[in-house]
Amino acid sequence: MTSRRAFLQAMGRAGGYGAVYLSMQAMGLLAAPRAFAGVPELAPNSGKGRSVVILGAGIAGLSAGYELSRAGYAVTILEARDRIGGRVWTIRGGDRVVQEGREDQLCTFDPGLYMNAGAARLPTEHHAIFHYARELNVPLEVMVNVNRSAAVDSGHDIVTQRRAVNDMRGHIAELLTKAIDRGALDGDLGVTDRDMLRTYLGDWGALSGKGQYLGSDRSGFSELPGGYGQAGREMDPLTLEQLMRHGDWNWPALFEETFDQQAPMFQPVGGMDRIAQAIYERISDHVRLSTPVTGIRSSDSGVTVTLQDGAPIVADYCLCTLPANYVAQLDHDFSAAKTASLSAALYVPSAKVAWEAPRFWEDAGIYGGLAWTEEASTVVWYPSGNWNSPKGVLMGAYSYGSRPASVAFTHMPLEERFANSRAVIERMHPGKSDLLAKPLSVAWNETEWSGGVGCAWSEEQRKTDYLELCRPEGRVFFAGEHLSYIPFWQEGAILSAFEAIKLVRERTAADGLVHADHR
Amino acid sequence: MTSRRAFLQAMGRAGGYGAVYLSMQAMGLLAAPRAFAGVPELAPNSGKGRSVVILGAGIAGLSAGYELSRAGYAVTILEARDRIGGRVWTIRGGDRVVQEGREDQLCTFDPGLYMNAGAARLPTEHHAIFHYARELNVPLEVMVNVNRSAAVDSGHDIVTQRRAVNDMRGHIAELLTKAIDRGALDGDLGVTDRDMLRTYLGDWGALSGKGQYLGSDRSGFSELPGGYGQAGREMDPLTLEQLMRHGDWNWPALFEETFDQQAPMFQPVGGMDRIAQAIYERISDHVRLSTPVTGIRSSDSGVTVTLQDGAPIVADYCLCTLPANYVAQLDHDFSAAKTASLSAALYVPSAKVAWEAPRFWEDAGIYGGLAWTEEASTVVWYPSGNWNSPKGVLMGAYSYGSRPASVAFTHMPLEERFANSRAVIERMHPGKSDLLAKPLSVAWNETEWSGGVGCAWSEEQRKTDYLELCRPEGRVFFAGEHLSYIPFWQEGAILSAFEAIKLVRERTAADGLVHADHR
Repeated sequence: MTSRRAFLQAMGRAGGYGAVYLSMQAMGLLAAPRAFAGVPELAPNSGKGRSVVILGAGIAGLSAGYELSRAGYAVTILEARDRIGGRVWTIRGGDRVVQEGREDQLCTFDPGLYMNAGAARLPTEHHAIFHYARELNVPLEVMVNVNRSAAVDSGHDIVTQRRAVNDMRGHIAELLTKAIDRGALDGDLGVTDRDMLRTYLGDWGALSGKGQYLGSDRSGFSELPGGYGQAGREMDPLTLEQLMRHGDWNWPALFEETFDQQAPMFQPVGGMDRIAQAIYERISDHVRLSTPVTGIRSSDSGVTVTLQDGAPIVADYCLCTLPANYVAQLDHDFSAAKTASLSAALYVPSAKVAWEAPRFWEDAGIYGGLAWTEEASTVVWYPSGNWNSPKGVLMGAYSYGSRPASVAFTHMPLEERFANSRAVIERMHPGKSDLLAKPLSVAWNETEWSGGVGCAWSEEQRKTDYLELCRPEGRVFFAGEHLSYIPFWQEGAILSAFEAIKLVRERTAADGLVHADHR
Repeated sequence: MTSRRAFLQAMGRAGGYGAVYLSMQAMGLLAAPRAFAGVPELAPNSGKGRSVVILGAGIAGLSAGYELSRAGYAVTILEARDRIGGRVWTIRGGDRVVQEGREDQLCTFDPGLYMNAGAARLPTEHHAIFHYARELNVPLEVMVNVNRSAAVDSGHDIVTQRRAVNDMRGHIAELLTKAIDRGALDGDLGVTDRDMLRTYLGDWGALSGKGQYLGSDRSGFSELPGGYGQAGREMDPLTLEQLMRHGDWNWPALFEETFDQQAPMFQPVGGMDRIAQAIYERISDHVRLSTPVTGIRSSDSGVTVTLQDGAPIVADYCLCTLPANYVAQLDHDFSAAKTASLSAALYVPSAKVAWEAPRFWEDAGIYGGLAWTEEASTVVWYPSGNWNSPKGVLMGAYSYGSRPASVAFTHMPLEERFANSRAVIERMHPGKSDLLAKPLSVAWNETEWSGGVGCAWSEEQRKTDYLELCRPEGRVFFAGEHLSYIPFWQEGAILSAFEAIKLVRERTAADGLVHADHR
């Protein structure tokens, strides 16, 4: 007992427990959980008599506040905006969209329609966010992420995804079959594996008996099969040359196997903010909206958070879930290393455009999923849910990433974004773009308190700035998607909050022992 | 006008219009529609004063009855069973499952739970069945058909589909890259395409800079990434040898690109029978349940259908939507060719097993989709919809096709089917099979009035028996999934019914002209 106490005391005094814990993790000495380990265990009343001020009512702050308040901590969540959710932002009719340097936009969507301006997907391997949906009874529905009937547009040449994906597969299978037959892989494969692979490639690529790719019904039909004499007519295969010269035709095959994008994908019924909202409803007494903070100071005895308006908040601990770029702007006395790392965090610009329209895409047999274009607007993202209802919100652009056209899109005047999106939709759905109404655009780089959609770390930064920002500063702990290996996702935000909760738990225990010694 | 009338008269007298129409279609002289052409146009009241008796209240008979009655025909639908839907059979608590040679089973599922014993999927390219869902306001929801987290079981070795699919892709990409680098494809590809393909393969296969497949996060993690120091740990890649030796691991990559299985897939909310039911509700006055027919006779003046019980039905026309194997058993005076072809139709056995259980698979993060096994039970098919509700119906087997184990499964005693299914589920979900309750099994080969799940035509038969069965016999017309190029699917049944409707329409017109001439 004595040595354990001494150890914890030393940690507590140095405020360094978190650092040690982290470095042990980073070195792989602590086993990370195989799958979702559940919410960190906090003993009932373990936080009694302790206060935590949480900065930010995004999903990190809300989930942490919910768990800490259940353990008896006196929680106060300070949120700069007049809404919770942070980059989980569902915009509905009546909502005002304020963007820096733009005229305000008023959303006038019909009741029941919404735009998920930020987070819009729940992969089933994101167990923590699913945990809250389950625990709080938030109804979920499938968010169609792949649609073989949807288009890919490359150089204004439009084909369906089923053609692009399956014709490419056929050509790859044919070429590899040829290489096997020519003996080019005899040194790599034994005779048995060669034969098995050749057989497999025949099935996988839909090759002819002679190992040629001559097209396949997987790529669809120019005349669909039907009754009686209607045998259907298959599409002529796209040639390998065509596929190679139309780079973006190949994108769906890459996108859909990304770990976080794999089928099936979900969304809360009614808008992505339903989960954050469900947490908020349970702790709304502890949340102060429209309360921007201006500074954080940690001392041996507590933390003081200063506000733009009103008296400072004093608490035993602080959990800061603000994006690093905003933490950098606060009045603080963090270490030089922390200060430098805060400034080094790179927030990625991104912009979406949404339209209200009658569901002309469903008339054409396209139910959900994404169409892709090489244009700056990047996608046409069809709504999932309320199938066959009169109207829907079509996401007409989601531009994101480092490609110059994408970055340019996130800084374009709204009308230019709308025009870009409209032109692509018109190309994919000739004659239908007149039906697009009530456009809205949100760029996260132009959204106050965010300044970007998420934080992109380089491999190198993961070893330096990232680790530094995970480290507590005295009684101040940190969380957010940027402090996780699942950046940009709610899951990363929650799991970083869980790590912060563990540090608060340990710090509370250490402080308790220190207090006991002083008695 | 005269020549047109003469032509139609000749057709009408010979009863051969349908045959000519069909042969023109078969020869490709009539353009088939590019996509869904819509319901065949029937002028208002064009069927007035005409009667049609329809045999079978499956989706073919119901859709035809609905359309014909809207055009003024006096429609009578005769259905042998005490329910509509045919092989669209949704079984709920309280329903009795009668199988030939088996003890009856009573379904005791909780309210809201169901088993789709037959049809269970709506591909979005099946425009005709979607048309009825839309027109009749049947709510749809996504039926998850692919789940990268679900298992594939080959030789009792179980891996996730994301590993099987993505590791195979990686190996294919690596091998083809090697072949390109060795010059094995220099004769097939120019330098530019070679370079582009090599680059593409690197992305597509997640290869290292040196063109090697060393594994990828697409195949998942042994430790998921998380907050702070939890970088995640990727799975070791399955080797090509392992993949080749575990044949069924490769099945998902083949299955999911089948045209009729491609994403996204839908189902009616509450059970597949909702669409058939919605049609039925509009024409229920015209449907006689529990009315098996025993014979059909066509004459110059009309059709007489004899019943097992009660007076024969006389009508101007008959539309027979019964499976060919049951038509063969009727008392009829069809041509020798038709008689031979009826007997040649091969109906495929198939069996499903369903269990009621708490949703332990969702506790494990598996939301919908199919797991695959080499065992006879073939699949574990997770329910879609009502996500995170307490219980669901797990389809624990869907055995179908010509593989000996599958055929054997469809003839097994029920307890043996249940045991087979249970063992597979236990292997995929250790410790959970105790939660499986209320098993039900339906084998279509043991279901009276069906005798199989659908009709399998050989390429050769498509030119002979199939064409013969599409041909009318006097005033008797035929429809059903077996008379389409989309066999086994509701879409094929409806589109064949549409073709039959066109023949009835033309015959009605011809008969009208004949009548006019006689006046």
